[in-house]
Amino acid sequence: MSFFGRVFRVATFGESHGPAIGVVVDGVPPGVPIDEEHIRKELQRRMFCHVRVLNPRCEPEEIEILSGVKDGHAIGSPIAVIIRNRRAVSDYYKELWMRPRPGHADLAYYLKYGAYHDHRGGGRASGRETAARIVAGAIAGKVLEEIGVRVSGYIVELGGLRVSSRPASYEEAEGAWERPLPMLDGDMAEAAINMLVKVASEGDSVGGVVEVVTTEVPPGLGEPVFDKLKADLAKAALSIPSAVGVEFGYGFQLARMRGSEANDPIVVKGGRVGLGSDRSGGLLGGLSIGEPIRFRVAFKPTPSIRKPQRTVDLTRMEEEEITFSGRYDVSTTPKALVALIAMTRIVLADHAMLAGLVRRTARSAYRRSEDA
Amino acid sequence: MSFFGRVFRVATFGESHGPAIGVVVDGVPPGVPIDEEHIRKELQRRMFCHVRVLNPRCEPEEIEILSGVKDGHAIGSPIAVIIRNRRAVSDYYKELWMRPRPGHADLAYYLKYGAYHDHRGGGRASGRETAARIVAGAIAGKVLEEIGVRVSGYIVELGGLRVSSRPASYEEAEGAWERPLPMLDGDMAEAAINMLVKVASEGDSVGGVVEVVTTEVPPGLGEPVFDKLKADLAKAALSIPSAVGVEFGYGFQLARMRGSEANDPIVVKGGRVGLGSDRSGGLLGGLSIGEPIRFRVAFKPTPSIRKPQRTVDLTRMEEEEITFSGRYDVSTTPKALVALIAMTRIVLADHAMLAGLVRRTARSAYRRSEDA
Amino acid sequence: MSFFGRVFRVATFGESHGPAIGVVVDGVPPGVPIDEEHIRKELQRRMFCHVRVLNPRCEPEEIEILSGVKDGHAIGSPIAVIIRNRRAVSDYYKELWMRPRPGHADLAYYLKYGAYHDHRGGGRASGRETAARIVAGAIAGKVLEEIGVRVSGYIVELGGLRVSSRPASYEEAEGAWERPLPMLDGDMAEAAINMLVKVASEGDSVGGVVEVVTTEVPPGLGEPVFDKLKADLAKAALSIPSAVGVEFGYGFQLARMRGSEANDPIVVKGGRVGLGSDRSGGLLGGLSIGEPIRFRVAFKPTPSIRKPQRTVDLTRMEEEEITFSGRYDVSTTPKALVALIAMTRIVLADHAMLAGLVRRTARSAYRRSEDA
Amino acid sequence: MSFFGRVFRVATFGESHGPAIGVVVDGVPPGVPIDEEHIRKELQRRMFCHVRVLNPRCEPEEIEILSGVKDGHAIGSPIAVIIRNRRAVSDYYKELWMRPRPGHADLAYYLKYGAYHDHRGGGRASGRETAARIVAGAIAGKVLEEIGVRVSGYIVELGGLRVSSRPASYEEAEGAWERPLPMLDGDMAEAAINMLVKVASEGDSVGGVVEVVTTEVPPGLGEPVFDKLKADLAKAALSIPSAVGVEFGYGFQLARMRGSEANDPIVVKGGRVGLGSDRSGGLLGGLSIGEPIRFRVAFKPTPSIRKPQRTVDLTRMEEEEITFSGRYDVSTTPKALVALIAMTRIVLADHAMLAGLVRRTARSAYRRSEDA
Repeated sequence: MSFFGRVFRVATFGESHGPAIGVVVDGVPPGVPIDEEHIRKELQRRMFCHVRVLNPRCEPEEIEILSGVKDGHAIGSPIAVIIRNRRAVSDYYKELWMRPRPGHADLAYYLKYGAYHDHRGGGRASGRETAARIVAGAIAGKVLEEIGVRVSGYIVELGGLRVSSRPASYEEAEGAWERPLPMLDGDMAEAAINMLVKVASEGDSVGGVVEVVTTEVPPGLGEPVFDKLKADLAKAALSIPSAVGVEFGYGFQLARMRGSEANDPIVVKGGRVGLGSDRSGGLLGGLSIGEPIRFRVAFKPTPSIRKPQRTVDLTRMEEEEITFSGRYDVSTTPKALVALIAMTRIVLADHAMLAGLVRRTARSAYRRSEDA
Repeated sequence: MSFFGRVFRVATFGESHGPAIGVVVDGVPPGVPIDEEHIRKELQRRMFCHVRVLNPRCEPEEIEILSGVKDGHAIGSPIAVIIRNRRAVSDYYKELWMRPRPGHADLAYYLKYGAYHDHRGGGRASGRETAARIVAGAIAGKVLEEIGVRVSGYIVELGGLRVSSRPASYEEAEGAWERPLPMLDGDMAEAAINMLVKVASEGDSVGGVVEVVTTEVPPGLGEPVFDKLKADLAKAALSIPSAVGVEFGYGFQLARMRGSEANDPIVVKGGRVGLGSDRSGGLLGGLSIGEPIRFRVAFKPTPSIRKPQRTVDLTRMEEEEITFSGRYDVSTTPKALVALIAMTRIVLADHAMLAGLVRRTARSAYRRSEDA
Repeated sequence: MSFFGRVFRVATFGESHGPAIGVVVDGVPPGVPIDEEHIRKELQRRMFCHVRVLNPRCEPEEIEILSGVKDGHAIGSPIAVIIRNRRAVSDYYKELWMRPRPGHADLAYYLKYGAYHDHRGGGRASGRETAARIVAGAIAGKVLEEIGVRVSGYIVELGGLRVSSRPASYEEAEGAWERPLPMLDGDMAEAAINMLVKVASEGDSVGGVVEVVTTEVPPGLGEPVFDKLKADLAKAALSIPSAVGVEFGYGFQLARMRGSEANDPIVVKGGRVGLGSDRSGGLLGGLSIGEPIRFRVAFKPTPSIRKPQRTVDLTRMEEEEITFSGRYDVSTTPKALVALIAMTRIVLADHAMLAGLVRRTARSAYRRSEDA
Repeated sequence: MSFFGRVFRVATFGESHGPAIGVVVDGVPPGVPIDEEHIRKELQRRMFCHVRVLNPRCEPEEIEILSGVKDGHAIGSPIAVIIRNRRAVSDYYKELWMRPRPGHADLAYYLKYGAYHDHRGGGRASGRETAARIVAGAIAGKVLEEIGVRVSGYIVELGGLRVSSRPASYEEAEGAWERPLPMLDGDMAEAAINMLVKVASEGDSVGGVVEVVTTEVPPGLGEPVFDKLKADLAKAALSIPSAVGVEFGYGFQLARMRGSEANDPIVVKGGRVGLGSDRSGGLLGGLSIGEPIRFRVAFKPTPSIRKPQRTVDLTRMEEEEITFSGRYDVSTTPKALVALIAMTRIVLADHAMLAGLVRRTARSAYRRSEDA
């Protein structure tokens, strides 16, 4: 379903080539500052218009807040935001009707929704849908600011190019966004752009791996046994188009280590209890313990390529060759990273509110009346 | 929260004096016909513009479908519909800031949301919010048509005027809508309009009681033990502004009857098992059994009146007198009935889908591919 | 479904003639005192063994806490409690197989679950299931104590006998439980018992109306627009077997009043804002405002009677007469009242936790570590 | 929370050293065969008692079905099953009070639940809790049989030993369970056991990677955009203790491939549309398309080891060394695999019911009555 969350709730809607995409965010505490400019800036992060092969559509986002905000603050009611679709070019998709593109969601949607599926631009399965999540993520980010939590991320691997260094601080991680691609190594970022241009010229595409990091997350987030933070973050990550894997801390490497190597020592630091290393990614038992959280997500290469591929014409049930000639992003990984950061914020905001760490009502309202 | 339903899901948004109200409806099966005209007509039912004292604002609804529909059919994705607010007159509300109107939700919202509350026109608590439910109800009605279920209703009591006759059929019930007020007795409908004009001239308001009826509902709707149909219908009814009570079948009267009088005999009719009377309202154990469902809801009088009332200025915490001078509906009962019919449809559609009585996916899709 | 609640969650299980009934309560904050004796006492309230016609089965409840409690306190994990069924007498039910008792849930269950239905003693639809809710309600009551909220109730009408007086205080309401039947008028309670004995001797049954009252409920409980407190309380009430109606405050009477009569004035009392009367039942906009909450629920007469009634043998699809000869409660209203009080506590605890008014985690835990 | 699922719902309870663990499974369609022996056999799979270092506790599971089953079939009501805890040895844990074991959930629980935490045997965070999931998974497996779906899995990597072969069929995968460890290579299984004994003798522990495979899953499972099958499976997987990563199909490897290499061709096979390879793991757009599903999960080594580790005494807030001397499983991976198979079944059953592919009610019930 297109509904997500328990206390901080999100409902997204919209198809790639429909009139608009949008989101309803429910449960935002009254008083949270909601700034149209801030939302626009988060959406801007997802554009990568300066790297043309990453976003040939490069549609400037035209947002409108329809409800839930007054004088720059949340009023406690659902916040609805819509983004009009302006640059959809649907003509090309006529010839793709009932001819699912390999690697795309097309086939799944035809099988689930039949002839009613809106396949243009991938319809509901388009990466464009994630723009609505980014709006919700921007609002969630404002909720998280109340408990001092910030979320960032960067690309650690793109088309085979890896950055093995790790950020010394949250600020260094966030600093990656000053480069043309959010990578911790400036030279690698430039090499990556050259690589992307070359791959695009070959009509091919690449995938990548990204890492999300947070500042310290207060202990107590995550609910045993099913709604552990690691479980909900994994769901959020894998709900993003193209995501194919997630790992926390050292992840799959931990499976090859011994207990004596894998455990993070428990130590006293800065007057509080914490971990002496971060192999676990900052979680224990899947719950937050006051440490920064760190996890990685793998995205497969963009399924759209300009090389011939085998598919089936579903109306005739015959195999045939298909060659995509429309515009496509040579890698969805950078945009997906922005969606992942948004989803991480949504999950953390929801858990913080569920755990009662963020106020849900105007704490002072009743008292204000009394004091007056 | 502003989210409702399990499989057929609804999220509404919007304040009375904000840019727009709207709704996202998720879970609509692909292929359900969605007709803008049909939605508009359902919204029109709520207007009662021909009875000026019932709707001085009389805002023509300007709807826009933003997603989930292609070529007049649901595609399986969330359907988002917005209705712009055009005729909001906010100036009057300046002097009501922090001075809650008795009987209204104002005080509750000030206490819950503090100074961030948008009090203009009642904000989120306005009856206007129910227009979004009516859109969702219109869509739910189309889902219910797949299993032959229709929902109607009429006013049984308004400002003390009662209609004691009962409809012999669903069609007779629906026929009430051809009168200026949906009542089963045409003379009473006219008397009611005269009464409303008189009450309005006195600056006062009235409440009423309405009855909802359905055609036969297939057995199996409702889930023991908490999500009984009677329980979910009661919640839906009481979620409507001004609703103060609900009763199924003979309701409170049943509490005064003996078991030997209250039980409906179980009989064979038309080749199937059914009930010989309908004291229970067509439910047993709170679940549907193949009979029409019938229940009543009481609505209190419009809290807005033109007579002085006592309230408290929350900024000074001092009692004072307040006299409302803006426009108001002399009775919210007729509009509330339309919202109640919509909510009933939403609940029944949700339960029908939960029980697997309505297909969720394109049943033929997979086969179509195979057969082609 | 048998799952209820959002943050304070309840799952019940068990059939009347199965090995046991029970409940899992999730979301109980760590540290809440859980006392087996307290639970047993609440269950005892439901017995009415001193009025033999009200409970011929009179089964002493044998409870066992299986999890979630250590040293008399909740540990934060789900609390599972089971109650063994000991006195089920199933033989009688053999002849009722596929012959649904009028007024009972039997027919609905046969239609929904077919030949797999366990019809003995009503199976899952038995009033016995509510014993599990009472366990959950006892735990919810302990959660509510953290914010000073208590819930009580009394019978206002039984078999046509009414008590019209109203309690001057919560304590007076609770005091009704010192009588053989929880009524505000001692003479009426005795008259009611005589009436019950007489009705039982006639092989008939009676229904009744009960009222629930609370101490002051802090403002902010209830979530616009669908999860209003009045909506969730209505659902909870109508989820109880035999419940046929609910009304808040003056309820259906309000529908016959004018706005100038119905509105509660807003006043200053005891330094805070509140209402000068309680026609609304202590809610505005369906949300709590710091006032006590008051609502009524109607229960139909016990469907089981010793008079011949018409039913259908579903295996032969033929009408026939049935006369129940097993034990039955002459009125389910007293037991239902206890279940209603429990459900009210569950709803209020859930909303209090959802609104963040009750801590969900060990607030001091982290600090304790720091301070040590 | 300890509640999981939407239509097929599960609630687990119980701590490692409490009276019992258990589960309530709601939403099981009437008529599904529920066999105590079948459940016991699934629990037996998790024991690995023949490999002593894998399960020193080796507690024979004593299960009791308390509700929801009659004559070997589900009746449509919640099925409650409890497993008594018999062999808990709690004495050892006295000295671990407020001294969290590194790598374990201890610290998180102390921080979240404070002094109320039941730390004995890990309390609620113990792997023992997964026995309750296995019961639910066994029931889910019976639901899945109605649509011909089966789920199995095997270890692909343990303590650094890898099996790189892949099963040619579901049957071959399931055949791995005839070996002492469920691995596709018999020699490797023996080598792994020797390795485990050696690691145990060194007082250390190892992790591993497992793979889950299914038979063909009918198309249409999974709900865009948040409740994709890959998202819900990822959540289910990461909800298991010790899970640190998940990947679908080629997973992280896909991030290093080009689009031209990664896409699975769409082909006609056996008269239906399908995929020519399985790099994607059998999902497109995160939804099922009629192909078998395949994904991997990484588990970290057991945190319990017999080597000194650093921790903090939370009562004194001082660092100290801790050496675990109780019994422990040298690797939790084999047991975790069984839990993962169970969770996979639960997710698939829930989605199949949500998509309407499994009946929820006795389809024939109503007709049976009519036909009789």
